[in-house]
Amino acid sequence: MRRLSIIGIGTGNPEHMTVQGVGALNRADVVLIPRKGAAKEDLADLRRAICDRFLANPVTRIIEFDLPERDAGDPSYRKGVDDWHAAIADLYAALLAEHTGENGHAAFLVWGDPSLYDSTLRIVERLRADAGMELMLDVVPGITSIQALAASHGMPLNTIGGAVHITTGRKLRAEGFPQTADTALVMLDGGCAFRDLPGDAYDIFWGAYLGTPDEIAIAGRLDDVAQEIEEARASARAAKGWIMDTYLLRRRDTRER
Amino acid sequence: MRRLSIIGIGTGNPEHMTVQGVGALNRADVVLIPRKGAAKEDLADLRRAICDRFLANPVTRIIEFDLPERDAGDPSYRKGVDDWHAAIADLYAALLAEHTGENGHAAFLVWGDPSLYDSTLRIVERLRADAGMELMLDVVPGITSIQALAASHGMPLNTIGGAVHITTGRKLRAEGFPQTADTALVMLDGGCAFRDLPGDAYDIFWGAYLGTPDEIAIAGRLDDVAQEIEEARASARAAKGWIMDTYLLRRRDTRER
Ligand SMILES: C[S@@+](CC[C@H](N)C(=O)[O-])C[C@H]1O[C@@H](n2cnc3c(N)ncnc32)[C@H](O)[C@@H]1O
Ligand SMILES: C[S@@+](CC[C@H](N)C(=O)[O-])C[C@H]1O[C@@H](n2cnc3c(N)ncnc32)[C@H](O)[C@@H]1O
Repeated sequence: MRRLSIIGIGTGNPEHMTVQGVGALNRADVVLIPRKGAAKEDLADLRRAICDRFLANPVTRIIEFDLPERDAGDPSYRKGVDDWHAAIADLYAALLAEHTGENGHAAFLVWGDPSLYDSTLRIVERLRADAGMELMLDVVPGITSIQALAASHGMPLNTIGGAVHITTGRKLRAEGFPQTADTALVMLDGGCAFRDLPGDAYDIFWGAYLGTPDEIAIAGRLDDVAQEIEEARASARAAKGWIMDTYLLRRRDTRER
Repeated sequence: MRRLSIIGIGTGNPEHMTVQGVGALNRADVVLIPRKGAAKEDLADLRRAICDRFLANPVTRIIEFDLPERDAGDPSYRKGVDDWHAAIADLYAALLAEHTGENGHAAFLVWGDPSLYDSTLRIVERLRADAGMELMLDVVPGITSIQALAASHGMPLNTIGGAVHITTGRKLRAEGFPQTADTALVMLDGGCAFRDLPGDAYDIFWGAYLGTPDEIAIAGRLDDVAQEIEEARASARAAKGWIMDTYLLRRRDTRER
């Protein structure tokens, strides 16, 4: 049976690689690396750097491929994602058929942790369910951008005994700050959704390009730093052509030392 | 100035160690390892195994110490935790004074990731604020039990574009399933708080001793597997003397392929 390792590689620092990840990388016959687009190109560079540094098995081949783009114009978000996943699944099936034998072992290097806002596992599920491909799957956990954010600010994610709500920029905008938690972590925010919140009620801990040499981190009362973050974000994005950022929001009325 | 590395070591599998963690471990003069109690003793063993395997610097010393226990009888949870943290801070101050010079470098090996339901960062904050100890702090992120759970079940944590709520057994019991998310992750559950939920409305993905050779994983409709989990949990706990488990709950009315 074909074997597929989905390896979490962390979020920008090659040293986020785990010993488990290095092992899985070196057991693979083929490593599949997506490229394309400004951000994707930098991310592909990091994957190449990881292979350069940690891949010692001379037999392992590195295959690069172009990912199809999601049709952001699709009026239904769900439908747009669904079609995109189907297209990627077809591509993966073709790549596996071309580059691995029936008992071969392929590895995907997934940004951060494969379980957090990443489609690889869903797409692999399609390969099994729709394309009927038999696969042995192993998932290697990786450092998420959430952990990189907390490490960068040297802070705990939760208040003592408190809940932590992980959400998206889209949902924060639509639903506001979650009632049931004093801490919210926001990912996949194409804009600055924190702008819609009352700035005196929250502290923000923001980070971009976490783990990379370009890492930026800003923290303070939302009122005080929202403008600074918005400007830092815009100028970094203009300079690099892309940005990845995430932030923690905490209610200021949460009493904690 | 004294330097302190708070190193996340992952949750049971020594190969969860990151390359960054291995580096920080080897730059420390002293590694401080807590022990005591049945679970603590096994966890101390894992930390020793990590040092055996990854510590190559002959100069680094390993110092073991007994952690004070939290007074679980304190009627105020908050106050109990506060007193406990104060006692640990005093101990850390004494250990650092005894075992590191003024420009020395100590490392703590923290279970999972230091930012998630762990008190080390708060206690270090006390060392600075209350004991006035000057410290350069670096935090090395580690694999959390949440990621180990997702990897074990080979599943994403979030539904597509959905939120993920991380909470404790205590809060789940008091507040029920969070209104604002379709996925809840429950940690620090001393019992089986999922028992209070309507079993036909949720799927559960449960795991104990994740990452270790004793790992147990059970998944299914809550109705169907709650009893099985409760029994597996009780017998594993009786056999080993301690248990660490965590689980993901997902609303079954969430439509997702
Ligand atoms: C498609 S999700 C992938 C998340 C990834 N699987 C993880 O574990 O972090 C991409 C989002 O993650 C966050 N992100 C990923 N890497 C980041 C980094 N290095 N710095 C800041 N945010 C990052 C951003 O919110 C971005 O929109
Ligand atoms: C004090 S918290 C520490 C969490 C840790 N910092 C992390 O990143 O996972 C302990 C709780 O984490 C969860 N946990 C930690 N290690 C685990 C493991 N190996 N298997 C299952 N649950 C675990 C359990 O819910 C346990 O009650």
